[in-house]
Amino acid sequence: MATIAPSRRVRRTPFSDGVEAAGVKSYTVYNRMLLPTVFRSVEEDYHHLKSAVQVWDVSVERQVELRGPDAGRLMQMLTPRDLRGMLPGMCYYVPLVDGTGGMLNDPVALMLADDRYWLSIADSDLLLWVKGLAHALYLDVIVEEPDVSPLAIQGPHADELASRIFGDAVKDLRFFRYGFFDFQGKQMLVARSGYSKQGGFEVYVEGTANGMPLWNALMEAGKDLDVYAGCPNLIERIEGGLLSYGNDMTRDNTPHECGLGRFCSTQTAIGCVGRDALLRVAKEGPVKQVRAIAIDGEIPPCDRLWNITIPGKDVVIGQLTSAAKSPDFNTNVAIGMVRMTHWDAGTELQIETQDGPRRGVVQENFWL
Amino acid sequence: MATIAPSRRVRRTPFSDGVEAAGVKSYTVYNRMLLPTVFRSVEEDYHHLKSAVQVWDVSVERQVELRGPDAGRLMQMLTPRDLRGMLPGMCYYVPLVDGTGGMLNDPVALMLADDRYWLSIADSDLLLWVKGLAHALYLDVIVEEPDVSPLAIQGPHADELASRIFGDAVKDLRFFRYGFFDFQGKQMLVARSGYSKQGGFEVYVEGTANGMPLWNALMEAGKDLDVYAGCPNLIERIEGGLLSYGNDMTRDNTPHECGLGRFCSTQTAIGCVGRDALLRVAKEGPVKQVRAIAIDGEIPPCDRLWNITIPGKDVVIGQLTSAAKSPDFNTNVAIGMVRMTHWDAGTELQIETQDGPRRGVVQENFWL
Repeated sequence: MATIAPSRRVRRTPFSDGVEAAGVKSYTVYNRMLLPTVFRSVEEDYHHLKSAVQVWDVSVERQVELRGPDAGRLMQMLTPRDLRGMLPGMCYYVPLVDGTGGMLNDPVALMLADDRYWLSIADSDLLLWVKGLAHALYLDVIVEEPDVSPLAIQGPHADELASRIFGDAVKDLRFFRYGFFDFQGKQMLVARSGYSKQGGFEVYVEGTANGMPLWNALMEAGKDLDVYAGCPNLIERIEGGLLSYGNDMTRDNTPHECGLGRFCSTQTAIGCVGRDALLRVAKEGPVKQVRAIAIDGEIPPCDRLWNITIPGKDVVIGQLTSAAKSPDFNTNVAIGMVRMTHWDAGTELQIETQDGPRRGVVQENFWL
Repeated sequence: MATIAPSRRVRRTPFSDGVEAAGVKSYTVYNRMLLPTVFRSVEEDYHHLKSAVQVWDVSVERQVELRGPDAGRLMQMLTPRDLRGMLPGMCYYVPLVDGTGGMLNDPVALMLADDRYWLSIADSDLLLWVKGLAHALYLDVIVEEPDVSPLAIQGPHADELASRIFGDAVKDLRFFRYGFFDFQGKQMLVARSGYSKQGGFEVYVEGTANGMPLWNALMEAGKDLDVYAGCPNLIERIEGGLLSYGNDMTRDNTPHECGLGRFCSTQTAIGCVGRDALLRVAKEGPVKQVRAIAIDGEIPPCDRLWNITIPGKDVVIGQLTSAAKSPDFNTNVAIGMVRMTHWDAGTELQIETQDGPRRGVVQENFWL
């Protein structure tokens, strides 16, 4: 396996020292920053995530900050989701699209004030898109990336661990709400959110220097809970149907193809980029859509698109984009985009991996 | 050393099969795509690049294509360089900046026709910036990333190898000019350019399927020239003063700070984004600028910013951003941004590495 080359361009995070001390074995690069992918092994990390509690360096969820009188107007321009009900303290999952309705990113938006928002982004330089629009439209808004790095606390014991650091009140946070909690005299923004189905929090750590003190405090406070360094887990996130921008969706896809049509209030989200294109899609429905797919047999790493064909025929009816062997469900769990002619649960598919074809079956739901 | 995790999001290239067969040892990720960084060792690759000829998979230099009636107008909007003299067949190195004059990318622009350009980009999603401007300004232009992947031929024998594939006429190409040359019945765009000081070409391969046939033909034709797979070499590019976007310059820097003031015709590049800011900079000059810096002793990998201080004083007067031990020049060669009070050749500096301070000296020129 090839190593990852060191350079300043692939940025370290406020928690990199902790990640290295915990023995990180593998990285990916996400938003031009290091994201750990394996500590002990993907399988060990998976079982541990489901049974204990992990601290994740997800600094790669960079923030795009919108600040100024036009921040709210620009926010609604960016997404087909209707933001009129949004208030400070709320997080919204928002698909963002270009003029043709193609996905540019799928961040979590945080409203900090009437005139201030953060977009906690997936893997694309969304900053440049937002800056381009703001510049060309002469909007009264500043668009920048602040020194904010999320640290996630995920797993069944996440509430217990977080409460030991931030106090019991943190347990009262509802899903996709945030509040400010004291840590060593500093107010930290803590949201109930995270890229796993095991539950937990994300702490938006402001200021690089505040990173390692929080990391160390969590590791110390959680010893009896078997806390350990972790990271978004390939197996668990596929089981849970958590899509990954760049893997399971790209600029080629509309939100509706990604199963995100429920976040598109195209009728009421007046002024959003891509509205015309998405009104059309909403009316007619997508012709292909994301599906959970089980795959038989041994599979190689899914490091490229796998074509999905009709068994016995050389006709491509989709692409498979993420796959991993699931210990708990005793099959290979996978995510793919399938044409409507073959997207019903139970449909047999042929998956063209680099190691040859495999049998796949469309599932009714993800593995929850 | 941590490995790099496989995923579809970190894209393979048309040449990845060849790169793997050649025994790639290390990768970085650049524009969300795999870029090899080491084949045999950084030092062996370095000596080989300077003495033989290498074939480089630089697919990560993705193209942003501008096509349509407003393509030319948008191009001039994107850069402070005056493009009025540009003609088809020419490549221009163009700094691109935001409204405040901060560098967004430093691509090579190719004019394909009056209404069609490629920007061969460094490491940022420039596509999103250009799309944002084009969308908001209702420009009649299509902005997309075509299926084009550059393959570089670099080294002293580059002319000989290229001529065996494309014919002797390729030797007549002048620096930063391109032409179309036949390969197996297909016309390929070949430019005299590349990210080394050893000379050579970049072939803009259109269509993924055309990648490996060209790779294999080059390897076959160059056997007696000791051709081998290579990649941009850390040591050689620092010696040559080739800046790397994300390492040696970021959004924080103006072109003038990067020593790229000569590419900014701010007086005549009417309509370019950032013109007001850069007129001011051009008038007053930058207060810090990129310099070649020699460093004594052993140094760790430069995987983070190293502060530059005044020896014996705790005053930061710059940042060092790239460094490597040079076999040919018997010193550590480095690139940093230094305040004008300390940027004169011969000035002694203190470099704060993660392994402790080192002595540095500002050089008159890069190592050429």
